[in-house]
Amino acid sequence: MSLRRSPIGCPIRSICLFFKRAKVLPLHKENIHRKSSRRTKTIYLIGEGTGETIDKIARASLAQFLCEDLKVKKFFQVRSKEQIRKISNGASEDGALIAFSIVEPSLRDFLIEETRSCGIKAIDVIGDFIVQLSMFLEEKPMEVPGRQHVLNEEYYRRIEAINFAVKHDDGKQPQGLRVADMIFVGLSRTGKTPLSTYLAHQGWKVANVPLHPDMTPPPELFQVDQHRIFALIINVETLVKVREARLRQVGLTPDARYADPVRISDEIDWCKAFYEQNPGWHVIDVSDKAIEEAAASILNIYQSKKRSKSRI
Amino acid sequence: MSLRRSPIGCPIRSICLFFKRAKVLPLHKENIHRKSSRRTKTIYLIGEGTGETIDKIARASLAQFLCEDLKVKKFFQVRSKEQIRKISNGASEDGALIAFSIVEPSLRDFLIEETRSCGIKAIDVIGDFIVQLSMFLEEKPMEVPGRQHVLNEEYYRRIEAINFAVKHDDGKQPQGLRVADMIFVGLSRTGKTPLSTYLAHQGWKVANVPLHPDMTPPPELFQVDQHRIFALIINVETLVKVREARLRQVGLTPDARYADPVRISDEIDWCKAFYEQNPGWHVIDVSDKAIEEAAASILNIYQSKKRSKSRI
Repeated sequence: MSLRRSPIGCPIRSICLFFKRAKVLPLHKENIHRKSSRRTKTIYLIGEGTGETIDKIARASLAQFLCEDLKVKKFFQVRSKEQIRKISNGASEDGALIAFSIVEPSLRDFLIEETRSCGIKAIDVIGDFIVQLSMFLEEKPMEVPGRQHVLNEEYYRRIEAINFAVKHDDGKQPQGLRVADMIFVGLSRTGKTPLSTYLAHQGWKVANVPLHPDMTPPPELFQVDQHRIFALIINVETLVKVREARLRQVGLTPDARYADPVRISDEIDWCKAFYEQNPGWHVIDVSDKAIEEAAASILNIYQSKKRSKSRI
Repeated sequence: MSLRRSPIGCPIRSICLFFKRAKVLPLHKENIHRKSSRRTKTIYLIGEGTGETIDKIARASLAQFLCEDLKVKKFFQVRSKEQIRKISNGASEDGALIAFSIVEPSLRDFLIEETRSCGIKAIDVIGDFIVQLSMFLEEKPMEVPGRQHVLNEEYYRRIEAINFAVKHDDGKQPQGLRVADMIFVGLSRTGKTPLSTYLAHQGWKVANVPLHPDMTPPPELFQVDQHRIFALIINVETLVKVREARLRQVGLTPDARYADPVRISDEIDWCKAFYEQNPGWHVIDVSDKAIEEAAASILNIYQSKKRSKSRI
């Protein structure tokens, strides 16, 4: 039988993304002039694998610029000279800057030659770091692409953690709480689900339980080690903003009872009082924090608790 | 009332991680000697925010080395000179290499001075790239930490996508299939859930529906645009391996019917025949592919379909 296959090794596919970010420039004359007189700049990101590394580096670096008229074109799974040639020609036409992460030597050298002959700049974003590591480790780099994604026992543990988080989301299967590394509790829209799946992708077994004045949490929540429970708290302004955003996302009007500031304030007061009754829980303020930032705070606490326990 | 707060700005907390990877060195005498005579090397990763960027770069770069006796210590949310001083002293004692990602100028300069006076090497992993970007964009970098995590409409869309994926996992709420960007179908343990949450964290609305010879898929699956359906296929060897790993992870013996090769082979044959009855679906081979790699293949197809549609 013939099955259509995934396109590894097929002709290049590019993705055009406009990195969106908050615009902080005030709207005075000088800035309007500056914006309109400036041509759109283009950056090409090239990776030989999934493109995660180059994407992460580009996002972190570009966040340091306003770059209002910037176009980012991504090319991943680039594994042939033919692909490199086409991309270089495109970059030359666009007058683009190329940022790449390619470890396979002949492909990397070819890219450098091609871009040089096209007169465009290409930056090897982790090449220098690999050279420095090589000197420090006194070991030659393997120069083999895709070595990050080894399907070993650690990988399967991570997959298991993701399945666990989804199965134990929103208070489901409370009997599973006893085997969770961490448990998140909090009001609706305090980020329990995104936090759980984010940390699950890092290999942590996470469950979450919703709290509401009219609901009784499952008894299992109080039977587990209470120091593994992270109680999310948020201020009224942020929760109103988050719930309004939620209503917009699902196409409802923002005047619903769900985003009513008075009601939200009551919910938060109840929640704080409830947390005070459970002094073993770690209270985490998630107001105005992205899930990545809240996760970093939680991991800091979790790891330091674990270390202090192992010292006892 | 007083609530315990998350530890931003609190004393440094470090996490010791041993990056695990498949060991490929054969166990002959020379290698045993090499391993035992070599001292453990230590790398310090320092980030001023969540540490995601430095972590990603380190993982990608270290994957190019065997570095069997390597210890990696991570320090994130580093925002004070006091923290830098303590970390530098620790690194000096360990004879470590420091890799850092700090954009705040006074902190970055302080780190460079401190490590220089301690006689250890510190590498600014994205500093050079930011300088190159600055020249290309003709714009000064803002040098403000944490700018990646702006809570804008795009952020809330991503949060909504994560909640959507969890709510529409494993065939739940099939009426939601019509608004999904992508739908994954496949046998048990072909990676539907990890793929869904992975792509959801990138902002894609993804649902997944399990397939099994004894189950009838929900009628909604056949009522949506069939080109948005990605049908996961896998070979017998990989599925046996994955299901055995699953049984080990949950503490069951690997001889259960779930991981029986004959039964799995029958399931896969049935699945292939079922996919042939649905020619609109994209068949994706996930054998021996990490979720990140499968996701890259899927996005390639999805984006190229979208582009060719927009050209019509």
